[in-house]
Amino acid sequence: MGFLSEIPDVTFKKPLFCSILGNTLLSTVPGVSGAGSTPENTLLTPVLDAELIVKGSITSHPIKPNTPTGCPTPASITRSMMELSGLQPLFINAGLRHSPTVPCLDVYGEIGEDPRFRDAVPQAQVLFEKGKLIGKFLSESFDLLVLGECVPGGTTTALCVLRALGYDASVSSSFVDNPVTQKEEICRMAIARVRADHVTAPLDILQYTGDPMMPVATGICCTYTGHIFLAGGTQMLSVSAIIKAMGAPLPYVVTTSYVRDDPSANVDQIARQIGVQIFYVDPGFGDLGHTGLARYCIGEVKEGMGAGGAMCLSYLLGHSPEVIRKTILTTVSAYS
Amino acid sequence: MGFLSEIPDVTFKKPLFCSILGNTLLSTVPGVSGAGSTPENTLLTPVLDAELIVKGSITSHPIKPNTPTGCPTPASITRSMMELSGLQPLFINAGLRHSPTVPCLDVYGEIGEDPRFRDAVPQAQVLFEKGKLIGKFLSESFDLLVLGECVPGGTTTALCVLRALGYDASVSSSFVDNPVTQKEEICRMAIARVRADHVTAPLDILQYTGDPMMPVATGICCTYTGHIFLAGGTQMLSVSAIIKAMGAPLPYVVTTSYVRDDPSANVDQIARQIGVQIFYVDPGFGDLGHTGLARYCIGEVKEGMGAGGAMCLSYLLGHSPEVIRKTILTTVSAYS
Repeated sequence: MGFLSEIPDVTFKKPLFCSILGNTLLSTVPGVSGAGSTPENTLLTPVLDAELIVKGSITSHPIKPNTPTGCPTPASITRSMMELSGLQPLFINAGLRHSPTVPCLDVYGEIGEDPRFRDAVPQAQVLFEKGKLIGKFLSESFDLLVLGECVPGGTTTALCVLRALGYDASVSSSFVDNPVTQKEEICRMAIARVRADHVTAPLDILQYTGDPMMPVATGICCTYTGHIFLAGGTQMLSVSAIIKAMGAPLPYVVTTSYVRDDPSANVDQIARQIGVQIFYVDPGFGDLGHTGLARYCIGEVKEGMGAGGAMCLSYLLGHSPEVIRKTILTTVSAYS
Repeated sequence: MGFLSEIPDVTFKKPLFCSILGNTLLSTVPGVSGAGSTPENTLLTPVLDAELIVKGSITSHPIKPNTPTGCPTPASITRSMMELSGLQPLFINAGLRHSPTVPCLDVYGEIGEDPRFRDAVPQAQVLFEKGKLIGKFLSESFDLLVLGECVPGGTTTALCVLRALGYDASVSSSFVDNPVTQKEEICRMAIARVRADHVTAPLDILQYTGDPMMPVATGICCTYTGHIFLAGGTQMLSVSAIIKAMGAPLPYVVTTSYVRDDPSANVDQIARQIGVQIFYVDPGFGDLGHTGLARYCIGEVKEGMGAGGAMCLSYLLGHSPEVIRKTILTTVSAYS
C-alpha cells in the first residue's frame, strides 16, 4: 500500500486535531501498560505527552519523550505533524490523576477505576452528556475533527468493552510482547461482573468496564456534525462499537499500519464486524535510518496520541509522504 | 444615547463569546460581594452561572438564577443572548473552589487568596503563559472575541490593581450601596504590601493583589490576533490597565450603561486615563415592565458574566434593540 491505505472521500475547510486524555487504574497493574517508565508513572504520561505537543518540549519533569528502549513516543510524532501543518491542537481532560501543564477542555471526570473490582466509570452517563456539549461546540467552528486519545492501559479497557459487546476481539499493545494472558484474565473478571448484573446498555458497559475517554468520545461523535476520524487502534474501535450499539452514525477510524499488522490483535477483523471504515497510515519508519522509529516496525509502541490521525491529517492537508517522513525524523532526532 | 454608545469599527465573520470564571477569597469576606446568597455561596456563583448559560437551567443545585432581591442574574441575560444569536459559549476556568458542571477550558489555576495577608495569585506568571496559549488557539478559528468574566469579589481586586498601578480609581459594585469603606480598607492593606516590597511589574502586581481571571485575560489579549472586546466594567478596566503597563496593544472594553452611571465609581474616567476605548450598552431595562430588570436601573447588579458584551455582540450580529430586549424579557420571565 501507499502512505494511506485508501483516500477518504471528504472535503473540508477548517480541521481540528483534538486528543482526549484519561487514566485508568489498570495502567498501574504491573505489566499491563508500556506507556511509562514504571506502572505508577503511566498515570503521568498523558500530561507529559500533551505538554510536549503544545510546547515542543517537556520542562515540568526531567523526562525525555522516548520509551525506555529508545523509541520516540507517538506524542513526538503528533508534535511534528502539528508543526508541519501549523495546527493548534486541543486537549480534552476526561479524567486524570495529575493536573495537566497545558490548558485542556475539562469535563471534570475522575480517573477510571479497576473494572475487576468495581465500576470503572461511575459517571459514564454524565461524561457522555458533556461529550455531547463538546461535539456541539466544535461543530460550530470545525468541519473536520481528528480525535485521538492518550489513555495508558486503554487497550485493556478496550478489550473488556469489545468483549462485553459480544465482539470476537483481540487487542493491540504498546509492548512488542503483548501481555495477552494478563489482559485476558483482567477481561475475564470484568466481564464476569458485567454478566452477573445482566448489563447490556452501551453506556452501562462503559460504566462497568470502560475508561473515562470512552463516554466523552462517544458523546462528541453523537453531536458533531462534520467529518470525524477517531484516531487510534483498538481503543477507538471500542468507541466505534459503543456508537454502533447506540444506533448513532459511525465515525471513520484511522490508525497506523503497525496496529493493523499486530499479530496478537485482529484490528481489521474487528472493524469489519463493527462495519466502521478504517484507514491505515504507513509512514515507512523502517527505512528512515532511525533505530528508535524502526522499532515501530517490529511492533513496539505502534500508535498513540492520535499519531496515525495526525499523519493522515497532514497528508490530507497536502503534505507529501516524503515531507511528512522527513519532518518526523528531524523532530524525533532533536529529542534523542 | 441609543442602544450602543458608539458603533465599533469592526468587521468579522466568526465571533466567539467566552467568559473566564474565577474565585477570590475576598468574596467570602462578609459584605464585599453581592454575587451569592451568603458570603460562602459566592464561591459557587461562577459554576452556577456557566451551567445556566450552557444548559438553560440550573439542575445541580436548588437555586434560581435571581438575586435575593429578585433581580435576574446577568448570566440569564447572557443566556438569552446566546439563544438569540445561536452562539455556543466557551468558558475558561482560571481558578475555582468548586468543580464546574459544564466543560471548561481549564488552566489549572487556584482560587485567589486574600491580598491583605498574602500573595493573591502566586501563579500569575504561569496563568499569563497559559492565557497566551489560549489566545493563540482561539486566533486560529475566531476573528472576534467577546471575553467576559465571572469573579465574585472581583471589583475589589480590580480596585487594588488599578490603585497599585497608580490610577485614581473608584470601582463599581453589584450592590446598590457599594461597600466603599470596606473595599477601601482592604485596598489600603493590599497596597501596603505592594509598596513595602516595591512591586511595580504588571504581573507582579497581579500576583500580589489580583485574582486568577486577570493574568489569563491578559495573556489571551497578548496573543489573540482578531478583534477583542473585554466584556465587563471596572474588572476589565483593571485588565486593560495591566495590558497597557505591559506595552501590549489595548483591547476594546464593553459594559452596560448601568456601570457607567454608578455614582460610586468613575468608569469612564478610568477608561480615559488608560486610553482604552469603552462602549456602553443601554438595554433600557427600566421600561420593560419587569421589576427585577428595572432594579438594574437603580444600580443593582449592573453587569456580570459578560452580559453587556453579549448584548453588544447580538446587536453587531444584526439583532435589533427591540428583539434583544424582548428576548431578555421572555428568558428572565421564564425563570421567575
